[in-house]
Amino acid sequence: VPATRLLISCADRHGIVAAVSAFLFEEGANIVSSDQHTTDPEGGRFFMRMEFTLDGLEDAAAFEERFAELVGRPLEMDWRMASADRRKRVALLASRDGNCLLDLLWRWQRGELHADVALVVSNHRLLEEHVAGFGVPFVHVPVTPETKPEAERELLGHLRGCDVAVLARYMQILSGGFLDALGLPVINIHHSFLPAFAGADPYRRAHERGVKIIGATAHYVTEELDAGPIIEQDVVRTTHRATVADLARMGADIERVVLARAVQWHLQDRVLVDGNKTIVFG
Amino acid sequence: VPATRLLISCADRHGIVAAVSAFLFEEGANIVSSDQHTTDPEGGRFFMRMEFTLDGLEDAAAFEERFAELVGRPLEMDWRMASADRRKRVALLASRDGNCLLDLLWRWQRGELHADVALVVSNHRLLEEHVAGFGVPFVHVPVTPETKPEAERELLGHLRGCDVAVLARYMQILSGGFLDALGLPVINIHHSFLPAFAGADPYRRAHERGVKIIGATAHYVTEELDAGPIIEQDVVRTTHRATVADLARMGADIERVVLARAVQWHLQDRVLVDGNKTIVFG
Amino acid sequence: VPATRLLISCADRHGIVAAVSAFLFEEGANIVSSDQHTTDPEGGRFFMRMEFTLDGLEDAAAFEERFAELVGRPLEMDWRMASADRRKRVALLASRDGNCLLDLLWRWQRGELHADVALVVSNHRLLEEHVAGFGVPFVHVPVTPETKPEAERELLGHLRGCDVAVLARYMQILSGGFLDALGLPVINIHHSFLPAFAGADPYRRAHERGVKIIGATAHYVTEELDAGPIIEQDVVRTTHRATVADLARMGADIERVVLARAVQWHLQDRVLVDGNKTIVFG
Amino acid sequence: VPATRLLISCADRHGIVAAVSAFLFEEGANIVSSDQHTTDPEGGRFFMRMEFTLDGLEDAAAFEERFAELVGRPLEMDWRMASADRRKRVALLASRDGNCLLDLLWRWQRGELHADVALVVSNHRLLEEHVAGFGVPFVHVPVTPETKPEAERELLGHLRGCDVAVLARYMQILSGGFLDALGLPVINIHHSFLPAFAGADPYRRAHERGVKIIGATAHYVTEELDAGPIIEQDVVRTTHRATVADLARMGADIERVVLARAVQWHLQDRVLVDGNKTIVFG
Repeated sequence: VPATRLLISCADRHGIVAAVSAFLFEEGANIVSSDQHTTDPEGGRFFMRMEFTLDGLEDAAAFEERFAELVGRPLEMDWRMASADRRKRVALLASRDGNCLLDLLWRWQRGELHADVALVVSNHRLLEEHVAGFGVPFVHVPVTPETKPEAERELLGHLRGCDVAVLARYMQILSGGFLDALGLPVINIHHSFLPAFAGADPYRRAHERGVKIIGATAHYVTEELDAGPIIEQDVVRTTHRATVADLARMGADIERVVLARAVQWHLQDRVLVDGNKTIVFG
Repeated sequence: VPATRLLISCADRHGIVAAVSAFLFEEGANIVSSDQHTTDPEGGRFFMRMEFTLDGLEDAAAFEERFAELVGRPLEMDWRMASADRRKRVALLASRDGNCLLDLLWRWQRGELHADVALVVSNHRLLEEHVAGFGVPFVHVPVTPETKPEAERELLGHLRGCDVAVLARYMQILSGGFLDALGLPVINIHHSFLPAFAGADPYRRAHERGVKIIGATAHYVTEELDAGPIIEQDVVRTTHRATVADLARMGADIERVVLARAVQWHLQDRVLVDGNKTIVFG
Repeated sequence: VPATRLLISCADRHGIVAAVSAFLFEEGANIVSSDQHTTDPEGGRFFMRMEFTLDGLEDAAAFEERFAELVGRPLEMDWRMASADRRKRVALLASRDGNCLLDLLWRWQRGELHADVALVVSNHRLLEEHVAGFGVPFVHVPVTPETKPEAERELLGHLRGCDVAVLARYMQILSGGFLDALGLPVINIHHSFLPAFAGADPYRRAHERGVKIIGATAHYVTEELDAGPIIEQDVVRTTHRATVADLARMGADIERVVLARAVQWHLQDRVLVDGNKTIVFG
Repeated sequence: VPATRLLISCADRHGIVAAVSAFLFEEGANIVSSDQHTTDPEGGRFFMRMEFTLDGLEDAAAFEERFAELVGRPLEMDWRMASADRRKRVALLASRDGNCLLDLLWRWQRGELHADVALVVSNHRLLEEHVAGFGVPFVHVPVTPETKPEAERELLGHLRGCDVAVLARYMQILSGGFLDALGLPVINIHHSFLPAFAGADPYRRAHERGVKIIGATAHYVTEELDAGPIIEQDVVRTTHRATVADLARMGADIERVVLARAVQWHLQDRVLVDGNKTIVFG
């Protein structure tokens, strides 16, 4: 039996865990794992992720309606359920640098990512052939300052039906209007340890500042550049010997791993957004 | 209201979380946090740590008896409750090197460790004066191969009434008989990345082997040397330039932090033992 | 025979290493170690650190003058020599938080720092007793916005004769005029991963931003706040569970180690300043 | 002008650096970088790596002969020179797991590795198609216990003319006789933090031991399994939640990076072997 994931966020109050687990027990479900977090014991917000299995569940809609009636509405919850065996549809976007894109495709091909890669979109043709080798559709949507609005409209059409978009070194800024119209979570990898070196050319700026550690940050995209909720970060040590090119090369190893972790956790419904932060359940 | 911690381990089966949370809900408790782990969804062992608050609890013994009757016994649990505001009594043991000992005392003095340091025991007098500065009783129990049995008997007397013993670079091997008679958890810091370099002189052996990373391991002590359940480990990079003395100095920083984390987590009842492993709830 | 350290910086050109090593060979010196760095093979700046021993050197001033005449002036070098057995005089400054201060004193007492701690200066009396235990003079120089100029004048008097000042969580901003008048290297520890969270309250701001890693930075102080040449940085992972207080506690472990490394390297003459960056020879 | 790398190892004595740099100066060479290491100032062994450029060098053999006569033989050095622009010929060996192999090929294709990949050898056909995509010859040399001697003879033929062999998860043990006959450096990646978990199945054994950190080790292969000189190691944190499969997946990220670093450093002539250890010049 595949597990079902229940994600909850609501104002913190007494009896939430008890209400949820009593409901599940009476439905005959077995709780496989449960994580929760309260931002503040006094008047904070409560977040929960539960995985449960339920033998013989035939009518998931009716089950969800019972949950809504008995638990969700009385406790004023935002909640959703996701079957662990449903593969999310992922759109990958990249520009010229295939480092993160190919790494994700490769992990996907190895079976590490439980998802369907619906397509790859790029504003360049450079990576087309590489993507072909993975049997994934490649769509070329060029963008210039003049054509940006229509390019975003075209992009919107291509991403229809996806569950999540991943910017795997896609070097175009997405407009707020586009993000609103898209209505999907969008994960970006930024090649610095945010909030340091937001914006363009972080490795050059890290070199100029003489930092001793460089990093990468995966975050959900919001209208404000490089300012969305951080999902994961990691770093690597460097020294005065490293050139900007060395930093880019060392950083590439970190970018790949950080983005892959963030995508993995998102696909496993482990990431809940709390304003401008994330809760990542382990 | 101070929180109560409930620690459970039992054979995995349906309804454990529901039973526990329903009981707590009916008692009027508010679950503050909950973590669990199953070693194997099929026939594995289930571990749980819950923190809850309960206004107006006057008779803790009766409360625990109700839990035993309604939940613990029916579900064949090993369980215990610990009040978060009860300070555990800690015995610290050290030999000549004060690195870990003084770091723990210092953290304790700063209020980082919610515990009472009952005493420091050492087989040398070297650290006596340092310990005095913290207002903690210092007991000198010399050990020689000949006097080991009686030294252990003396030690046993000194540790009576403690909740946990911490070997902060105590360079004597405790006999199995002593550990049995003591009946307390004993936490040791070993200055290597176990299972590498168990036993004597790990920095010298790490130097001889030419490793590029050294580490430290905090673990519960069992009769077999350096083979008990690992609580925490950490590492630091090194190079061919480092001498054995350099490794010892760099390693000392890691030893302190690793031991402090392990002691902290133990004091917070975050560490559950599963055979020769630990579950450390975050 | 104690080693002598030779530190050089000059415009890069042919023959620098050869000139230096030929001079040392003819003087009968034995080069124990040598490190160098060129910021750019074309027209960059050259930095070198050599350690050599020289039996029977009696007149160091004459030796230095020969070096100046035969090597330093012809190659237009900035250079200095420092005997490895000369203990630098260190002034430690702190405010209320003794974390970094006591860690440095403790390392010094253990013999890890080859230096004389000349005095501790604080704008509070809180740490006076702790410092007394190390046998180091404690000077109280209170600072208010009104008294800052005269406080800095007093400070200047106390630091006379020192080789380096270390701000071990000294929470006063030193004026540019003070730094000019002082004329010494000043090392500061900032409790963030610079350039992120420069300025006040970095742990609170890190918490608000929801970063997954926090850090600490040791740097030389310049007039611009938290913008001087970085000597060392390190980080520790965190999660959504950590409160601001947790970050401060976890960060304290990193602050201590980062500052201790930076001070150690400075005392060993391993750190050369190149504009707003450092070269740290291993 | 491409740089030349000079690698030296000899008994430590006075005047080595001076002799080398005086020779280079008189030949008109410019020293670009220099690193050295002494295992013991008293009677230890001296290692050096210098990079220099020399305009107008036409007869490298005559230059090397002059070095041998004036420096190498008088100081009883083991030494060699390598032109930085000569691409080493690399043989890659793998079995079924393409993780490390494809990562190396990919870095090579991106231009990160200054080398010619001469061929890929595998005892399975599984990775044949992947390798084809990189335009690299794939050779299938099956091995069974019975055919091992002839398989090693065949392997020997294929590796003729290579400069280094890299075991990128090649799951066959190479005999001492084969290694002797091969006469090349062979780099292996072992999926544990050596010396912990040498031999088979390290992730399963790490899981059983309950370690909190797993690692990977790149080392030169010697006749004794997993006991050769370590070039590089790195680690990643894990928890009680990770299954053996999780460890393998997390470890794969580390294996790739550790092996890539070791291969990179070897190709740059940065790694000198000192008995059972390595010196890795930065």
